[in-house]
Amino acid sequence: MAITRQQAAVLDADDELAPVRERFALPAGVIYLDGNSLGALPRHVPARLARAIEDEWGQGLIRSWNDAGWIDAARRTGARIARLIGAAADEVSVADSTSVNLFKLMVAGMRQNRGRTVLLTQHRNFPTDLYIAQSVAELLGASLRYAGPGDDALLAALDRSVGVLALSHIDYRSGRIQPMHEICAAARAVGAFTLWDLSHSAGATEVALDAAGADFAVGCGYKYLNGGPGAPAFAFAARRHHDRLRQPLSGWLGHEQPFAFAETFAPAPGIDRLQCGTPPMLSLLALESALDIFDGVDVAAIRAKSVALGEFFIRLVNNELAPFGFTVVSPRDAATRGSQVSLAHAQGFSIMQALIARGIIGDFRAPDIVRFGFAPLYVRYVDVFDAVEAAADVMRTGAWKEPRFAAPKTVT
Amino acid sequence: MAITRQQAAVLDADDELAPVRERFALPAGVIYLDGNSLGALPRHVPARLARAIEDEWGQGLIRSWNDAGWIDAARRTGARIARLIGAAADEVSVADSTSVNLFKLMVAGMRQNRGRTVLLTQHRNFPTDLYIAQSVAELLGASLRYAGPGDDALLAALDRSVGVLALSHIDYRSGRIQPMHEICAAARAVGAFTLWDLSHSAGATEVALDAAGADFAVGCGYKYLNGGPGAPAFAFAARRHHDRLRQPLSGWLGHEQPFAFAETFAPAPGIDRLQCGTPPMLSLLALESALDIFDGVDVAAIRAKSVALGEFFIRLVNNELAPFGFTVVSPRDAATRGSQVSLAHAQGFSIMQALIARGIIGDFRAPDIVRFGFAPLYVRYVDVFDAVEAAADVMRTGAWKEPRFAAPKTVT
Repeated sequence: MAITRQQAAVLDADDELAPVRERFALPAGVIYLDGNSLGALPRHVPARLARAIEDEWGQGLIRSWNDAGWIDAARRTGARIARLIGAAADEVSVADSTSVNLFKLMVAGMRQNRGRTVLLTQHRNFPTDLYIAQSVAELLGASLRYAGPGDDALLAALDRSVGVLALSHIDYRSGRIQPMHEICAAARAVGAFTLWDLSHSAGATEVALDAAGADFAVGCGYKYLNGGPGAPAFAFAARRHHDRLRQPLSGWLGHEQPFAFAETFAPAPGIDRLQCGTPPMLSLLALESALDIFDGVDVAAIRAKSVALGEFFIRLVNNELAPFGFTVVSPRDAATRGSQVSLAHAQGFSIMQALIARGIIGDFRAPDIVRFGFAPLYVRYVDVFDAVEAAADVMRTGAWKEPRFAAPKTVT
Repeated sequence: MAITRQQAAVLDADDELAPVRERFALPAGVIYLDGNSLGALPRHVPARLARAIEDEWGQGLIRSWNDAGWIDAARRTGARIARLIGAAADEVSVADSTSVNLFKLMVAGMRQNRGRTVLLTQHRNFPTDLYIAQSVAELLGASLRYAGPGDDALLAALDRSVGVLALSHIDYRSGRIQPMHEICAAARAVGAFTLWDLSHSAGATEVALDAAGADFAVGCGYKYLNGGPGAPAFAFAARRHHDRLRQPLSGWLGHEQPFAFAETFAPAPGIDRLQCGTPPMLSLLALESALDIFDGVDVAAIRAKSVALGEFFIRLVNNELAPFGFTVVSPRDAATRGSQVSLAHAQGFSIMQALIARGIIGDFRAPDIVRFGFAPLYVRYVDVFDAVEAAADVMRTGAWKEPRFAAPKTVT
């Protein structure tokens, strides 16, 4: 039975998170389904950044490190992200990029798990996670082991030689959620540490790092956290590891007394030792400010809407797009699916270009995946409906065949 | 013979760089002599950032990586900094922080100089440089060697076991300039690579990396480059090293094809391989925009004014402050002095606090150094005059003894 746009509108009217959309400045004429690549702009951020630039930098100058609280911004921001990922406020720090934080924690984890020779990962991790693992294994003289696909292969690859198991929590292509609790338990049973990349989880999916017994985690600030392009990343270390944690990017802001200008490194107590150099303050303040969006918003409600949007999309795809050769790559079971639904289609690249030209923005991941991200804080059911209608029209009319959509052009 | 304020005003009237000051938004009632910690705000940057935030992020969203040219911002910005440090446009990249870039290049340099076991540095380097060297030596199993103070001790410590010699170009406390040409030649003679920290040089002092035959360099974007608090740093590698350069922070943006999402790392050609993760775009665009200040400005003219300001300050100090027990720590020879003059005084901390309370902003570095930075693009001769008068008044009146100036408070 066909689903109507009216039904979508009713779902929006009943949506308790619907008012949150008003907190974002979204472009007219666009349906934005790529919040998993770059989150939308919170409406209040431009004024905050103008103040940071004109008043704090321009007028306060160097004094703003103390007077405007810049020096504590990384810690404050980490504490606010902690609630979204099931961590304590003093277990999360904001610094550098996801890749740099992966490096810190892979090395620190392998060091802490002395005598272990294997760094375990999985092929389907986000590439940067693999690249960093390759580098860390080489630097430390460790073996990099790739588990085969699937949970069974992963668990089979876990043994007492594994120092750190580094995994994406949500697969960037399929959107599949890894069973964090089970994997943490299995790792713990053999004494391996877990390091989770939460880039596609934080802000859209419930994550319970402490409840699962996770050891380490990282994630980026510019996807569902809406911190702006290239926003600083976050890093989590379970409190039980803090005292012994020795990360290799021992920059001055990770020192126990940065302003003593001592010549020998001594790590700061607690999570602050994950800091390295001076943080990019404008980008950091944008992220901090963007997190206001989550004030008063329950992560369970975010997850519930994320699931509902995905289910609604899949029903529409079954009705409208399956006849054109689209297949659903993401798990059909909502419990193991993140906040995106990926479809495979041999002409995926051109189809996504045609959609973007109509203002329906998702993205494409080689070789054949079109990815639709449903940021629950600003995507509506009518957006999902309209996106599928547009895709059906692109197929019906053959619009994707236009030469301008054929060029191999990429977006991040 | 006493120098008058009128003489200072005449020097300003004759200053060819005087009009550049109008390009900055400086606070009223402040004499800012701390541009060597955080550069002032260029007047045009707020509008550029507002556009980046509201139009490019808010309206363009993910499309701005291509449409607004974000993807090339690091390369563009590096190319513009290159001119200021005597490098070719394709030898400089902007990424991460100074500390992170030091790590990349120390590891890369030691790897490239295979068989060498010593990482050589000097105690007076900026602490973060030492902290990173300590970490790199431990990771690579190299020996960290500290040369004694002075050029002779440095040259004596250079031998064929040295893989990389890592030095601050300008001492952050004294402002002394290291003789880059001589040191590079001596390093080259024994096959050691040089890695220079230009944080206190770039934008204020002539630097001739290629002419000196330097191998690697880093520097920060937020001092004399005026890129904003925590602006991304730059990294230089001489072109002859590019093909073999293997830095350990192998994030996805340093990959030869980031958007192919390959699972094995392969470095990008040329300087782009120094990239790691996604750059903090708002901070990066602020830096890029800030560099407009240098358009049409000759580095030799900047250096000439820097020297003149320092000479003027030292003459005033000799007349007005020496009687109060201040001594000049910086080299008296302008040829070996950077764009700051440091004075030593046992009560330096309290004196600087009293000056800051009067709107004369310099900074203090333990144990007894008061540092005055003369950013040639916006500091006037009358500012130098007024700062010394204020310091003399603080001493004459004993204002520094007020209890509010006694607390051990620090600024970066």
